[in-house]
Amino acid sequence: MMMDTQLTIASMIKRTEQYFPKKEVISRTQNGVQTFTYKDIISRMKRLGSALESLGVKKGDRVGTLAWNHHRHLEAYFAVPSMGAVLHTINFRLSKEHLIYIINHAENKVLLIDEDLFPLIESIKDELETVEAFVIMTDNNTLPESSLHQVYSYEELLKRADNSYEFTAEIKENDPAGICYTSGTTGKPKGVIYSHRGIYLHSMALSMKDTLALSESDIVLPVVPMFHVNAWGMPFAATWMGTTQVFPGPNMTPKIIAEMIEKYKVTFSAGVPTIWLGLLKELEEGTYNTSSLRGLLCGGSAAPKGMIHMFESKYGIPFLHGYGMTETTPLVSVTRFKSYQSELPDDERLEILSKQGLVVPGIEIKAVNENGEIKPNGKEMGELLIRGPWIADAYYKGDSNSESFQNGWLHTGDVVTIDEEGIIKIVDRTKDLIKSGGEWISSVDLENAIMAHESVFEACVISVPDPKWQERPVACIVLKGGPGHQVTKEDIIEFLRPQFAKWWLPDDVLFLDEIPKTSVGKFLKAKLREQVENQLAL
Amino acid sequence: MMMDTQLTIASMIKRTEQYFPKKEVISRTQNGVQTFTYKDIISRMKRLGSALESLGVKKGDRVGTLAWNHHRHLEAYFAVPSMGAVLHTINFRLSKEHLIYIINHAENKVLLIDEDLFPLIESIKDELETVEAFVIMTDNNTLPESSLHQVYSYEELLKRADNSYEFTAEIKENDPAGICYTSGTTGKPKGVIYSHRGIYLHSMALSMKDTLALSESDIVLPVVPMFHVNAWGMPFAATWMGTTQVFPGPNMTPKIIAEMIEKYKVTFSAGVPTIWLGLLKELEEGTYNTSSLRGLLCGGSAAPKGMIHMFESKYGIPFLHGYGMTETTPLVSVTRFKSYQSELPDDERLEILSKQGLVVPGIEIKAVNENGEIKPNGKEMGELLIRGPWIADAYYKGDSNSESFQNGWLHTGDVVTIDEEGIIKIVDRTKDLIKSGGEWISSVDLENAIMAHESVFEACVISVPDPKWQERPVACIVLKGGPGHQVTKEDIIEFLRPQFAKWWLPDDVLFLDEIPKTSVGKFLKAKLREQVENQLAL
Repeated sequence: MMMDTQLTIASMIKRTEQYFPKKEVISRTQNGVQTFTYKDIISRMKRLGSALESLGVKKGDRVGTLAWNHHRHLEAYFAVPSMGAVLHTINFRLSKEHLIYIINHAENKVLLIDEDLFPLIESIKDELETVEAFVIMTDNNTLPESSLHQVYSYEELLKRADNSYEFTAEIKENDPAGICYTSGTTGKPKGVIYSHRGIYLHSMALSMKDTLALSESDIVLPVVPMFHVNAWGMPFAATWMGTTQVFPGPNMTPKIIAEMIEKYKVTFSAGVPTIWLGLLKELEEGTYNTSSLRGLLCGGSAAPKGMIHMFESKYGIPFLHGYGMTETTPLVSVTRFKSYQSELPDDERLEILSKQGLVVPGIEIKAVNENGEIKPNGKEMGELLIRGPWIADAYYKGDSNSESFQNGWLHTGDVVTIDEEGIIKIVDRTKDLIKSGGEWISSVDLENAIMAHESVFEACVISVPDPKWQERPVACIVLKGGPGHQVTKEDIIEFLRPQFAKWWLPDDVLFLDEIPKTSVGKFLKAKLREQVENQLAL
Repeated sequence: MMMDTQLTIASMIKRTEQYFPKKEVISRTQNGVQTFTYKDIISRMKRLGSALESLGVKKGDRVGTLAWNHHRHLEAYFAVPSMGAVLHTINFRLSKEHLIYIINHAENKVLLIDEDLFPLIESIKDELETVEAFVIMTDNNTLPESSLHQVYSYEELLKRADNSYEFTAEIKENDPAGICYTSGTTGKPKGVIYSHRGIYLHSMALSMKDTLALSESDIVLPVVPMFHVNAWGMPFAATWMGTTQVFPGPNMTPKIIAEMIEKYKVTFSAGVPTIWLGLLKELEEGTYNTSSLRGLLCGGSAAPKGMIHMFESKYGIPFLHGYGMTETTPLVSVTRFKSYQSELPDDERLEILSKQGLVVPGIEIKAVNENGEIKPNGKEMGELLIRGPWIADAYYKGDSNSESFQNGWLHTGDVVTIDEEGIIKIVDRTKDLIKSGGEWISSVDLENAIMAHESVFEACVISVPDPKWQERPVACIVLKGGPGHQVTKEDIIEFLRPQFAKWWLPDDVLFLDEIPKTSVGKFLKAKLREQVENQLAL
């Protein structure tokens, strides 16, 4: 039979160390941009492993990070699970209440914290029940003032660490490697535990030709935060393949992203639609060479068609649309043109690009509604169900499991159609679908259509209660700045009229300065609904 | 945690059935070329599963195939393991003695046999101890005459099979899926059991951008026989990805291969050096359009540099060199240029192409000699050791395990060097290395050098006993036919002189009509040595 080789994260960097020591990691921090070889980085990973041991971290302990996208965060990605502990990447944009909740819920023993984020932790320190050491990630020699006793310098710890330390922890592939919390718009965040095996298989999947095709020859720029489902798993796969990685660091702007793409000849990047809307604006206003890009992956929420069209046709930047969630490690599906679709006319191509793609090898999906499994005809709507080796089967400590995990399937709460080719289209969150006169209206379809209007920057469509129809759609719009963008409610309705059935057209159009978003850039529809109901009630 | 999804072969075709039903399998059999959709093929796979059940095949039973590369063989690849049985692909070129041995050793319950290979089985039928049914794979309506009672028509069985049969067997990923026997040049063949998990992970690896990058958009032609380590696993990966597959069928010739490449716009093919030497000759003599090819994978034994050079420079066909063995599913390493090697001059590029490449993600290697692990300097020689999730940890029924499997590593018996970039070069089989005056001479290096001579078709270098030096090299050469290829022993020695130390130069050069080979095209050095010793003794 075959060897019982365990699929672990430590085995991934062993390969990088042996075969790609000269390849580079480029990292922007508070103090500027630094370049490291993988030889440096892996040596630092080992010293971090040793340092964590010296801080008393044992197998299975949770080590939290509050950090931007940079090389030290990458070091933690591999050192923490490879020394046997569990990496908890913390979304530092959560409310203080939620931050306290998840740090205590995950029982973090050590926190690795960026210097500029340390004040945040200082402000909640009295509420943290389990943290025994605070390690500050900084290039500076002096640590920030603190009332805390157990504060360490990351670089000092590495300097003092055992140079000969190797990752020898006895790790089984089903051991926990990481934990992320969902940034749910309602209720308490829920923890998802990633296993070594799940991350390993997910990394293989990202590297397959028919998914993202991550390769040693790529230069990847993960814009999606490293606390957002492990930057969609890209740092794991990229490090394994020996790929050059460019980390954009703290408080990055569209300008910084555009400059890094040009300067480092980035081939592949990933982020949420808001990021790409910002980049597009930057490309429109400045002059950048983006010819190195072979793909921009967009996920988190649906990307507007107009934006995809601009990237593809005006800038020649191939756009990929993906789907996943915290519970799915996260890649479930990604844009994939089948060989017989390669000659499609532009509009059909754009139609496919605006959907969430084909399920990746290894994962299985179906969609169900009250009548059972839906037909793949691009019309029937149903809730998306997912299963596979990198899909969660429970929340940490059993929170709300019964709703999301049933009969071996993850119930996503996302409503989709699936077309004849198997391509998934997210229609809505189950709770955001608008039910008008007994029929469903997709807020996402309306949003995408509105965002194709040349004067619209962002659009969010929500349901408002209606005495006659039960619910009706209302569009909330942020216009592009500048002259020539005076748009009325009627303009928008007329713009939509040829595209939709009459009863889909929004009852009202509201112009806002901004749309409230979650900490990972998704529309906060519940909050918006509240605002709008107040406004309409006036 | 993550779902306990089992990595099985049945899950692979489920994806193909759902998303690639229209894609095609092109199959050449005795009766010509036929085209099937995956929808057809998978429906036939299910009916084969049902038919095997009706023949009494139960979970864990071994089902053997004696067949060329065609669609029915592909059907068996998936149907047999997916209904819970074990696929035994039998090398029908083995001696009758070995055929009888492995069919009995594997305790095959059913044999699926090509019509033209049936006489072979008829001739050994009295020696087969476990076979209960012989199923003839043919397009013809009448079966061949036979003295056997339990002879069935494959197509009849499929016709009568349950149309609604689904693969529902409860299969765990570590269950056996297949078995191959090594075609060892000495001793009895040894069985290697492939698990579902091993084949699944190996298929993922073949589809990774940095290995073979097998993709839905490819059109693959497996020339390597489907009994030769499952055609190197390509049919599994290709079917999973929804790749168009072209099967070359029985008694194929270089001409047939060249024609199929042109006609079906083949993008990727795989075979042993002998096949590619033949194809090259065919390309030299005929006129073919091979521009669709993005890669020819060569394995089984080392490919001569001259041939690689011709494919690359004259025909613009990218050449890949791989390494693996029956015990390794088989892919262990494959040619891979690192990004910083992309601008290498032709000769350095050719040097890399003539080596066996970089170890693929998931597999770990090292090489050891009497002083321990060798340094990766391209000079030190050591025996290659391998471990990973698709590497065997034992032979079936425990044959000769202690020699090959030690401390969690497979000991390959292949002597290699590993260079600074991690690239493996097979120097020799441990038993073929020539030890002259206490120093090692690589027969493979000499062979490759000789084969670069324009008049040489094949060369095989063996050791002969020497009273003074213990062993000395002797070169056995097959010349190209035709005028202008009159070459003497002295010509060859002079050709080698600038390339090697004096004591490496062969003591003698013998011109032969052919070099004896194993059934999978490897030089049978033991046999050649015997011939030569007889000849030299005259």
